[in-house]
Amino acid sequence: MSNELYTVIPDGSVTTPRGFRAGGLHCGLKKTGRNDLGAVVSDVPAAAAGVYTTNVFQAAPLHVTRESIGKEGKLQVMIVNSGNANACTGEQGMEDARSMRDAAARAFGVAPHLVGVTSTGVIGELLPMDKVLSGIERLPAAVSGTREGSEEFCQAILTTDLVKKEACVSLTVDGIEVHIAGAAKGSGMIHPNMATMLGFITTDAAIDAEALQSLLREATEVSFNMITVDGDTSTNDMVVAMANGLAGNEPLHPGHADWPRFAQAFVYICRELAKSIARDGEGATKLIEVQVEGAVSDEAARVIAKTVIGSSLVKSAAFGADANWGRIIAAIGRAGQPVNPDTVDIRIGEIVTLQQSRPVPFDEEQATEYLKGDTVEIHIHLHQGDGRATAWGCDLTYEYVRINAAYRT
Amino acid sequence: MSNELYTVIPDGSVTTPRGFRAGGLHCGLKKTGRNDLGAVVSDVPAAAAGVYTTNVFQAAPLHVTRESIGKEGKLQVMIVNSGNANACTGEQGMEDARSMRDAAARAFGVAPHLVGVTSTGVIGELLPMDKVLSGIERLPAAVSGTREGSEEFCQAILTTDLVKKEACVSLTVDGIEVHIAGAAKGSGMIHPNMATMLGFITTDAAIDAEALQSLLREATEVSFNMITVDGDTSTNDMVVAMANGLAGNEPLHPGHADWPRFAQAFVYICRELAKSIARDGEGATKLIEVQVEGAVSDEAARVIAKTVIGSSLVKSAAFGADANWGRIIAAIGRAGQPVNPDTVDIRIGEIVTLQQSRPVPFDEEQATEYLKGDTVEIHIHLHQGDGRATAWGCDLTYEYVRINAAYRT
Repeated sequence: MSNELYTVIPDGSVTTPRGFRAGGLHCGLKKTGRNDLGAVVSDVPAAAAGVYTTNVFQAAPLHVTRESIGKEGKLQVMIVNSGNANACTGEQGMEDARSMRDAAARAFGVAPHLVGVTSTGVIGELLPMDKVLSGIERLPAAVSGTREGSEEFCQAILTTDLVKKEACVSLTVDGIEVHIAGAAKGSGMIHPNMATMLGFITTDAAIDAEALQSLLREATEVSFNMITVDGDTSTNDMVVAMANGLAGNEPLHPGHADWPRFAQAFVYICRELAKSIARDGEGATKLIEVQVEGAVSDEAARVIAKTVIGSSLVKSAAFGADANWGRIIAAIGRAGQPVNPDTVDIRIGEIVTLQQSRPVPFDEEQATEYLKGDTVEIHIHLHQGDGRATAWGCDLTYEYVRINAAYRT
Repeated sequence: MSNELYTVIPDGSVTTPRGFRAGGLHCGLKKTGRNDLGAVVSDVPAAAAGVYTTNVFQAAPLHVTRESIGKEGKLQVMIVNSGNANACTGEQGMEDARSMRDAAARAFGVAPHLVGVTSTGVIGELLPMDKVLSGIERLPAAVSGTREGSEEFCQAILTTDLVKKEACVSLTVDGIEVHIAGAAKGSGMIHPNMATMLGFITTDAAIDAEALQSLLREATEVSFNMITVDGDTSTNDMVVAMANGLAGNEPLHPGHADWPRFAQAFVYICRELAKSIARDGEGATKLIEVQVEGAVSDEAARVIAKTVIGSSLVKSAAFGADANWGRIIAAIGRAGQPVNPDTVDIRIGEIVTLQQSRPVPFDEEQATEYLKGDTVEIHIHLHQGDGRATAWGCDLTYEYVRINAAYRT
């Protein structure tokens, strides 16, 4: 798939942009023996931006990463561990996150403020620092600029995820080919709010750090913040973008001729990762996409789309392949946004079920057939204004309940 | 159970207050042959009050009931059908609801504005009016002031509910014994907002209609509005209270000496019904009660309690008997209310799991044993102020998914 603006690289990864290496290893946090420690490393300091969870209980590594980026807007090394979130761990947790940063700085030979730290896993337990620190010492030998390196990294950020989540594009800036790539981790406790789950975006484009921060924030609004698995917002959500400039273009900023193209490609990467996370939500069998148009504003459309995608009843109906538009309209009606109760259209895929708020007879068998697919689109037109938004989620299944009735123990 | 204020009547029902009859019958809406039409009737016009769903898509019967009560603040007959919600049915739906009112007025020999109408069931289908109207003609013969009458009524308001929900108390007003009783229907799409699912409250106390309306609204805030099954708010939620004054007391109002006693008994009835609904939530195996104290305000406490009780992850953990306080704190932190991240205590039953936001070692086996019970209490103390609230919900189970993957078809 490609368009005039950018080309999708199907087997691309975070190591596709020039000068990025990645890798992972097992240090002993996961009992399964799977990778639980990883890093993304740039050959040179990269302009960096971050967005963080709005949960009141922000985990220690978020504070440390924000501190690092705050220093001069740059990062060269992002390390991540899975199996333990280092959240609700008090002063000791902060000390541990700083020790991880210092150890990674020593191991990779960079200044501590060029290192960011992320963690995901169980809340409220202290990290076994001996295992983590000896793992960090082995990280430099584990990273490489190859496909394998990024594979090992992706393994290291999984918890209850089933598949790795990656996306990559190339595009032309100043006549030079640049790349944008990303990797992400999702699964449960997925309902980001002005921030998101773990995401790592790399690009070899040169870009002004402030412009990168604004772009990441705007892209997050229409991607990571538009997905939900279960309505729960984690204490550890964070997306970090690193732009190392090794492509050699003139630094990008909103006044640059190629900015719109770059911004669109960047949003594409964020949306692809967000959709992958939704599709791989805990226990999910399908991706649900809710498109709202005709709302009084984009913000109203966003709230309505997220309310519908977050409805347990809509999600269960999707699992059961039941074209239950009554639950869709009930969710629209409780979203707390201005809605004219007499002008709502609802389509499920191509099947019109409601027009001007009146039921339209449809072929139930055809609808069930459509709903059995691995992607379900719900289109809502409110006929009130120009506001529009798209949200993504997944179905609610027996497997979600099984996973979450037994996750911690 | 009783206290100094009122006495609980364990086998009491909506027909226990003097001058109330109830009943139900099968008119053909439910394929199972179970009751699907019912009525609560007062021998004389009763002061009436109602609270209604805040969902934008209010079903037709809600408009009709509000219209009736609006006329002179009185009702004598409440009719209800299950199996069809008469929601999203347009002008025809309004006509049908009015026809139901008129037919009931003729059948019971009262003025149309003394009749209220409620419906519950599938959204978006027109009522088969021939069946409904011929059923209404048979209703007067089906109602009685006996225990059986209220049993038949309770059967008529069930959809996917498993058990009938009733509560009754007696108390003394002006030295005279008065009764308050209630019946309710719940199950799924339960997350009332300034209104609630179907509830019917009867009392033989004399009470000023305005005072009854304020009392119902206040009692709803701390009862029906504090429960959630799945976060979805129905188009048909409604609670109606009828006070026929046949006890002969001086009309109650906030200045009456026995008002506090009556108000407390009234709140008790609403809370008992609300808790019954939560406990019988679709697929539920247990009642969860979340108590929040030490919040900056009662309103903040309410939002936090409802956020925790609504968390799919907390609900799944309760089903799995997992003392996963990390999910509780994550929910507290995303509630959007002022919370000091360093001063939170969490108890699960009597088991302290978090103190001043720091994990406290506890006996996992003891915790699992407690969580396997049919009632789970979660106590949260924020140590910030005097705000407090209690919310009720249920666990998220395989059975919830099964029911809702297949409800409509």
